[in-house]
Amino acid sequence: MVRILLILFTTFVFAQNSDSENHRKIIFPDIPGYKTLKCDLHQHTVFSDGKVWPTIRVDEALKDNLDAIAVTEHLEYQPHKNDIPHPDRNRAYEIEKKAASEEDLIIISGAEITRNMPPGHSNAIFIDDANKLLIEDSLQVFYEAKKQDAFIFWNHPDWTRQKKDAVAELTDMHKMLIQKGMLNGIEVVNGWGFSDEALQIALDNNLTIMGTSDIHGLIDWEYEVHKGGHRPVTLVFTKEKSVTGIKDGLNNRRTVVFSKNYLIGRDEFLVPLINASIVTKEIKYRNDSFVLEVILKNLSSTEFTLKNTSKYKFHNASDLIKIESNAQTKLMIKTLEELNEVLLTFQVLNAINAPNSHPEISLSIKVD
Amino acid sequence: MVRILLILFTTFVFAQNSDSENHRKIIFPDIPGYKTLKCDLHQHTVFSDGKVWPTIRVDEALKDNLDAIAVTEHLEYQPHKNDIPHPDRNRAYEIEKKAASEEDLIIISGAEITRNMPPGHSNAIFIDDANKLLIEDSLQVFYEAKKQDAFIFWNHPDWTRQKKDAVAELTDMHKMLIQKGMLNGIEVVNGWGFSDEALQIALDNNLTIMGTSDIHGLIDWEYEVHKGGHRPVTLVFTKEKSVTGIKDGLNNRRTVVFSKNYLIGRDEFLVPLINASIVTKEIKYRNDSFVLEVILKNLSSTEFTLKNTSKYKFHNASDLIKIESNAQTKLMIKTLEELNEVLLTFQVLNAINAPNSHPEISLSIKVD
Amino acid sequence: MVRILLILFTTFVFAQNSDSENHRKIIFPDIPGYKTLKCDLHQHTVFSDGKVWPTIRVDEALKDNLDAIAVTEHLEYQPHKNDIPHPDRNRAYEIEKKAASEEDLIIISGAEITRNMPPGHSNAIFIDDANKLLIEDSLQVFYEAKKQDAFIFWNHPDWTRQKKDAVAELTDMHKMLIQKGMLNGIEVVNGWGFSDEALQIALDNNLTIMGTSDIHGLIDWEYEVHKGGHRPVTLVFTKEKSVTGIKDGLNNRRTVVFSKNYLIGRDEFLVPLINASIVTKEIKYRNDSFVLEVILKNLSSTEFTLKNTSKYKFHNASDLIKIESNAQTKLMIKTLEELNEVLLTFQVLNAINAPNSHPEISLSIKVD
Amino acid sequence: MVRILLILFTTFVFAQNSDSENHRKIIFPDIPGYKTLKCDLHQHTVFSDGKVWPTIRVDEALKDNLDAIAVTEHLEYQPHKNDIPHPDRNRAYEIEKKAASEEDLIIISGAEITRNMPPGHSNAIFIDDANKLLIEDSLQVFYEAKKQDAFIFWNHPDWTRQKKDAVAELTDMHKMLIQKGMLNGIEVVNGWGFSDEALQIALDNNLTIMGTSDIHGLIDWEYEVHKGGHRPVTLVFTKEKSVTGIKDGLNNRRTVVFSKNYLIGRDEFLVPLINASIVTKEIKYRNDSFVLEVILKNLSSTEFTLKNTSKYKFHNASDLIKIESNAQTKLMIKTLEELNEVLLTFQVLNAINAPNSHPEISLSIKVD
Repeated sequence: MVRILLILFTTFVFAQNSDSENHRKIIFPDIPGYKTLKCDLHQHTVFSDGKVWPTIRVDEALKDNLDAIAVTEHLEYQPHKNDIPHPDRNRAYEIEKKAASEEDLIIISGAEITRNMPPGHSNAIFIDDANKLLIEDSLQVFYEAKKQDAFIFWNHPDWTRQKKDAVAELTDMHKMLIQKGMLNGIEVVNGWGFSDEALQIALDNNLTIMGTSDIHGLIDWEYEVHKGGHRPVTLVFTKEKSVTGIKDGLNNRRTVVFSKNYLIGRDEFLVPLINASIVTKEIKYRNDSFVLEVILKNLSSTEFTLKNTSKYKFHNASDLIKIESNAQTKLMIKTLEELNEVLLTFQVLNAINAPNSHPEISLSIKVD
Repeated sequence: MVRILLILFTTFVFAQNSDSENHRKIIFPDIPGYKTLKCDLHQHTVFSDGKVWPTIRVDEALKDNLDAIAVTEHLEYQPHKNDIPHPDRNRAYEIEKKAASEEDLIIISGAEITRNMPPGHSNAIFIDDANKLLIEDSLQVFYEAKKQDAFIFWNHPDWTRQKKDAVAELTDMHKMLIQKGMLNGIEVVNGWGFSDEALQIALDNNLTIMGTSDIHGLIDWEYEVHKGGHRPVTLVFTKEKSVTGIKDGLNNRRTVVFSKNYLIGRDEFLVPLINASIVTKEIKYRNDSFVLEVILKNLSSTEFTLKNTSKYKFHNASDLIKIESNAQTKLMIKTLEELNEVLLTFQVLNAINAPNSHPEISLSIKVD
Repeated sequence: MVRILLILFTTFVFAQNSDSENHRKIIFPDIPGYKTLKCDLHQHTVFSDGKVWPTIRVDEALKDNLDAIAVTEHLEYQPHKNDIPHPDRNRAYEIEKKAASEEDLIIISGAEITRNMPPGHSNAIFIDDANKLLIEDSLQVFYEAKKQDAFIFWNHPDWTRQKKDAVAELTDMHKMLIQKGMLNGIEVVNGWGFSDEALQIALDNNLTIMGTSDIHGLIDWEYEVHKGGHRPVTLVFTKEKSVTGIKDGLNNRRTVVFSKNYLIGRDEFLVPLINASIVTKEIKYRNDSFVLEVILKNLSSTEFTLKNTSKYKFHNASDLIKIESNAQTKLMIKTLEELNEVLLTFQVLNAINAPNSHPEISLSIKVD
Repeated sequence: MVRILLILFTTFVFAQNSDSENHRKIIFPDIPGYKTLKCDLHQHTVFSDGKVWPTIRVDEALKDNLDAIAVTEHLEYQPHKNDIPHPDRNRAYEIEKKAASEEDLIIISGAEITRNMPPGHSNAIFIDDANKLLIEDSLQVFYEAKKQDAFIFWNHPDWTRQKKDAVAELTDMHKMLIQKGMLNGIEVVNGWGFSDEALQIALDNNLTIMGTSDIHGLIDWEYEVHKGGHRPVTLVFTKEKSVTGIKDGLNNRRTVVFSKNYLIGRDEFLVPLINASIVTKEIKYRNDSFVLEVILKNLSSTEFTLKNTSKYKFHNASDLIKIESNAQTKLMIKTLEELNEVLLTFQVLNAINAPNSHPEISLSIKVD
């Protein structure tokens, strides 16, 4: 082949994200009608069984470009109690709140209700006073949290210490809590974990889909940030960047979880998020041919793994397409004749809208 | 969650491959009964329209850890003819042969028969004398190549300069050549290109599946080697590492093409190659649970994208699994009860055995 | 120039240190008669004004390949006192001791005597009981530390909050403490700081030369470990790897400080350390010439900056030579005739044996 | 030390240069009165004993951000003669000229007069016709070159094949050539080589100081570009970016050689270049102290190794300061009292103005 021009297919990372400090920033575009806030709503410090002073959680969040974090110390598990016998269970929240006072970072109050199964561990966030949740009775504590108008979600329902087979399953108590509005969300992702069953429970019971780091040690170490790793976050779609906005988003189940390169959520938010993340540019027919070139640019921190489901074939790819995070790739579409518009469709394999199920997106490529 | 041990899910690159010179080496394991030889069988130098002296092709091949390269100058396209009016069309081969004389690299003679369509461009390799292929008649040149017992393959059948729609299609002339054993293979991959239709033609007509760089400039620049890119190669499965071995492999269609992260071939060789590339280790039940942990180690230069098709779900992954090249990842399998053996099955999405079709592999995990 | 062989001058990093986790390990060879122990003897946790639970200090030290760390909480400065009103000032030490119980890491007890000037801040290490150091009188606390047979060193004598001009200077009280053996060392390096005057004080008063991180936050962040940074450490030359060995080393002033790429110490230990760090190999005359080639390999974590002071000139370098950490470089020596042995001498500019003074080393290159 | 703010001393690479393609660009600022042009004036292609077609030299130069390259094929050494028996010795120049016709890159005609000693090899550049230099007599060829108004420089005077001890030395013939204006420059740097004696000859005989790659193979491989290496270049200080401008600059000895991290030249140009390369910013007194902070930013592709020779000491460094290429570092100056202006002086150890001699620069730090 007498080729003259070099055509680089390999994706490349944008210059502005190429140094390592920028690379750790978690970035997702807004979607129509909503801001996309990156939230980590399950974290620990020395005030329960974590390994850092609360201010470190603020520093980590700023480095990771988060919009909000919650303070969720265990109420009942206090291994440092002899060293830190603080009577006020709101103390970690207060420290973080103060540390973030001049930053564009929202600190959300919370507590982890730490019980045997059922109901296991749950986070109550947006609470007024954690101290009032120090209640012996496993049910009464939920009533109190609800009284404080908390948003409550079930933590790591697949935890092998509480469920040997790691299969999340609602007990009667959970069903009751859900029915009474005292269990509003469920962790589909906790740390490195992922639970298909938890996702199904969320879908079946109209619960908010949650993903959290549940960090105890250092984000940098646990998620190997300098090798390109990220903590899991819950993307909350809000009307405004505020505590109220996040609460409203959570209460209305407007979330997508980002973990590793997975995006997990309801199609209603998952599809707009993917559509906002992948933009097209430099659309033109390859000289004197029926091959249409287009740059697909990924504006997000997730890598996309796409499976072509359209009728078109590609000149430079099989049906499997990868677009690295914050990078772009050139796609060459065989349109067979000269067209003004081409409709591509992809199954987004790294996006999950139900167990073993992946949303499909459409990409309309318009030739000028 | 009261977590004590840090568990790293993220894949990591093995130490021995971590410096950039080693990273460029293309590595694939042997398969049962055959050696896996990495071959780039379509290359140009200044002796036709390439930009380097032939010795550079030898140096590049050694850096890339190839086993064999072919010298395939255009017979009819000689843009440097005024500067390099060499009468002997075997000259580039001789230079490379000499340059590789003390290296463990096989140099294969060849020539690119460079015609309009039909039949377009074809490579004849393992030839005795390129000069004798300087024949006006487009058919006679194939007879001569066959007389020299060449292995002949159709180059970039999807080239837009010769096929505006980039759809590879057999003409009557091609059919005749195939029938007479004068067309033995077809490029499914040429440079950054990929052709589903060429793959289908190979399958339908019993042709050898080929992938080549068709390099004219520098491998380092065209494939962005220092960003982790690789040239395409044809993996040839041979009884021995020799010219004869490779010819035998090609004649018997024992090939898999490696391009970007795709592996393209017949199941007969694709599946054993994948099986040899992914090994399991450190199999054990996670403490006091029904979650079986296993390390999947990728011994090859391709990244694997796997879709879980088994009945088991994973504790730390959805149905989409990625294993980076020369790296490993930990998988946690929910076996629901304690088992002695677990059979995982995956569709290998980056492997292609037919248009839009991906082989399935089985992975038997045995607990000691 | 008709050059045939490629000769790479540029230093390259050894394969075994090339991944980022290994790269952070601080490595220095032993010297004749002594083990070289890497020690960070000034650190804080939440038990005074640090930001991490003590176990993180153990984890950091293991990642950095340290041999020993000391626990040196402020006795008098307790900003977290309301939250952590622990009565036992040995608590952080106990936690670290337990955390390191199965590791090859020595934890040394200690406390930071935190006073206004004079005497400023001092660390007493190898103490029996920190609680007994809670003494109002600034002098009595030193008597008590000495009674416990502590090794005591003056911290950041150039601290601008206590000395506006950052010029370390002995007060009468310091002179008295030194005279009575109650001040045994001085920090020449604290964090990013370096003090020539402190070094001069150490030399003039027979004090041990110390360098510490004085870490409050995270080592990874403050020293940009993943960009290749390291914390400062005191290299202690010991007869054995034990608390006793380190104490003996410190008491006998057998130290070199490693900070950034500086090595600071007395010639007695500095020169053997440099000699052990730079080894020669592959010595041979360049074909048919009077140019002697030698590989200089740097076995340490510091980069060396050398100034040639020998009579020989180099064929591939000026008088300024750099050898990167854990890397090697080829030097070509113009010997003018064929010699059996060549004696090179270098001033080691990154090594400091007194203010503005750098040791000279000899390198004997023997041709086989 | 109760430290609140994190202060990072370690230099960091600017974001805009952080991806590898940008990193290879050779960058130096202009100096007062002159443009700083980056020139590689000694290169080979297949038209003598090089390994690439001439267009590759153009591509490499563009990637390296050069302003000019010369084409200097051996006149008398033609190992590819049988393959490339071109009668016109200007051919490589013509090819490069055409390839660069739409680029901002100057191609300079030239030829390498390739003789035994004396006079060894010399480059004549800015010639009208290389063919006319095909003259048997070693002296007549210089007359012819001069007749064409060439700028002529002695190549690798320290080449061990022609001078076993690698000591550059003028012969009577060289002296005569110099006297008659037929030898105008001398390579102090050729490839990885460096010659103090050549530098002394340049200074003693009023010759232009030259540094070239003398590239035969690939710049990427020989200089390990993707590990941060660069080819040597001659920085020519010109009134305009043109062939004429460069010729004028060379004829008037307005050069500095950049090789590895060395800068080699006359103080007249070396010092302004260093002054333009190192700029100061963010000058301010550290809160409530006599420590003046200043950021030193290096706008060039060389790393600077500075030795403090001023009366001031630094709070965060010894007398040895390093500023990485295209990076910055913070320096803390102990001014002992509050000053409006501080004059720092440094010996620039990586800059060479004579054998074993380094220029001194002044840096005036003005406090607003």
